[in-house]
Amino acid sequence: MPTGHTREVIACVIVIGNEVLSGRTRDANIQMLGSGLASVGVRLKEARVIVDDIQVIVDTVNELRARYDYVFTTGGIGPTHDDLTSEAIAKAFNTVLERNPEAEARLQNHYGSGELNAARLKMADIPRGAALIDNPVSQAPGFRLGNVFVLAGVPRIAQAMFDSVKHGLTGGAPVLSRAVAAYVREGDLAAPLAALQETFADLDLGSYPFVRDGRLGVSIVARGTDAARITAAIDAVATAMRALGTEPEAEDPVGSGEEVF
Amino acid sequence: MPTGHTREVIACVIVIGNEVLSGRTRDANIQMLGSGLASVGVRLKEARVIVDDIQVIVDTVNELRARYDYVFTTGGIGPTHDDLTSEAIAKAFNTVLERNPEAEARLQNHYGSGELNAARLKMADIPRGAALIDNPVSQAPGFRLGNVFVLAGVPRIAQAMFDSVKHGLTGGAPVLSRAVAAYVREGDLAAPLAALQETFADLDLGSYPFVRDGRLGVSIVARGTDAARITAAIDAVATAMRALGTEPEAEDPVGSGEEVF
Repeated sequence: MPTGHTREVIACVIVIGNEVLSGRTRDANIQMLGSGLASVGVRLKEARVIVDDIQVIVDTVNELRARYDYVFTTGGIGPTHDDLTSEAIAKAFNTVLERNPEAEARLQNHYGSGELNAARLKMADIPRGAALIDNPVSQAPGFRLGNVFVLAGVPRIAQAMFDSVKHGLTGGAPVLSRAVAAYVREGDLAAPLAALQETFADLDLGSYPFVRDGRLGVSIVARGTDAARITAAIDAVATAMRALGTEPEAEDPVGSGEEVF
Repeated sequence: MPTGHTREVIACVIVIGNEVLSGRTRDANIQMLGSGLASVGVRLKEARVIVDDIQVIVDTVNELRARYDYVFTTGGIGPTHDDLTSEAIAKAFNTVLERNPEAEARLQNHYGSGELNAARLKMADIPRGAALIDNPVSQAPGFRLGNVFVLAGVPRIAQAMFDSVKHGLTGGAPVLSRAVAAYVREGDLAAPLAALQETFADLDLGSYPFVRDGRLGVSIVARGTDAARITAAIDAVATAMRALGTEPEAEDPVGSGEEVF
C-alpha cells in the first residue's frame, strides 16, 4: 500500500451518481464514511462525486486505488440500466463480471423465484475474485476487491454495509476530537488561534462560525491522536475565548452535521 | 475552453474543507450548485472534496480548470489560519495575493476601524487580476479569476454569491427535467425502463427507489434539453408503470434533496 510506511492510513470515497450532481439528491454518505472511518483510525482525505459512466468510473477508481490505502464507492449497484458500478469495477481490475452463486442464493431467498427477474439477477453479477459485503436491508450484496469497497448508494444500506466491514480495516491510531464553542466572533479569535495551531502543530485546529438565537459564535474543533494534547489545546482555546470576555462551553465535536449560519 | 466546440457546457465543484471529510459537516453546496448550474444550462459533471492544504488545492484547481468550462470552489476564504484558498488560487494562477482596496473598503464599512484587525483584513487579500464577487451577508467578498469562481463555504453565503454570478455564465440549453413516481418496485420496472432509455437516448433517465409510509416505490426522472421529448419519455414511463398495476403520479423532479428509504 502506498502509505504503508507512514502511520497515517488514508482513504478516499467515490460517490457514483448523476442524481447527486444534478442536485436532486443531497449526499449523506461522505459524512457517514468520514466519521465512521475516523472512528477506526482511517482518515478520509478526499471524496469525489462522479457521473454514471463506465469509463469515468474505471479511470477514477484506478487513479485513486493506487493513491489511497482504502477506496469506498457508493451507488450504482442496483437493478436498473444506470447501475454500472459492478461492470466498471471488473473492468478497472481487468477481471470478468460473473454470476456469483452466493449472491444469487441470497437474492433467491429474498425475492423468491417468481420475482427474481433478469434485472434483479444483475445484482448477483460480481467481479471474479471479490468478497461479498452483507446487505441486511435488501440482501443484494456489495463487495470488496483489493482495497476497493463497493457499497450501495441508499444511505441506510451504505451504513449497514460499512458497519459490517469497518472492523476489518487496518487503521492507524483512532482519530480523537474535542470541541469548544463560545459567543465570540471568528475574526477576534483568529490571531490567538493561529498561535495555538503553531504550538499544537501535531493537531488539526478547525474554526467553524455559527449563528444561534441570532448571536454570532465560533466552534473550535481539535483533532488528533493524543488525548492529552487535545485536552491541552482545547483548554488553551477556552482560555483565549475567556480573554475575549465570554465563557466557553464544551461541545460535541461531531456537531449536528449541519452548518448553522 | 476545452469543450467550447460542443454544445454541453460543463462545470466542476471543489469543496475545500477538512470538516466535510471528518464528518463534522454535511456538505450542502454541491447540491445547491448542481441544481443552480442546471438552471442556467451548465452541467455539473464532477465534485471533489479536498483537505485544507495549499499544494492539494493548487494541484486540484490546475487539473480541473483545464478540463471544465467553469470551476467553483467553496470554503477556505475566512479569517483563520485554516483558510488557505485565496493564497492557493493565487499560486495556481502564478500571480500574487495582494490587498484589494475595494474589498478592504467593504470590510471597513462592515466592521468599522476598531474591529478590522489583521485576521479580518486577510479577507481583503485577493489574487491580482481577480474580479470580486459580492457577499451581501457578511461583506467579505469571493472572487473570480479566469474560469474559477471562489465562493464562501457557509451555505447561505455560497448561495448568495452564486446567485450574483450565475446570470453571467455562458450556458448551453437549460437542463429540463420531469419526474413520475409509483408504488412499483425498481426491479420490476428495470427492463421496460432500459428499453425506454434506448428509445430516448438523448435523455438521461434516472431511477430512484424510495420507501414512503412503509411502501416501496420508485421515482423516474427524465433530464435533457428538449421539453417535448421529456414529456414523451415520462408518458411512456407512466404507461410502463400502469402495466405493472399501479397508477403513477407526477412528482417534483428536484425531489426533497433527501433520499427517502
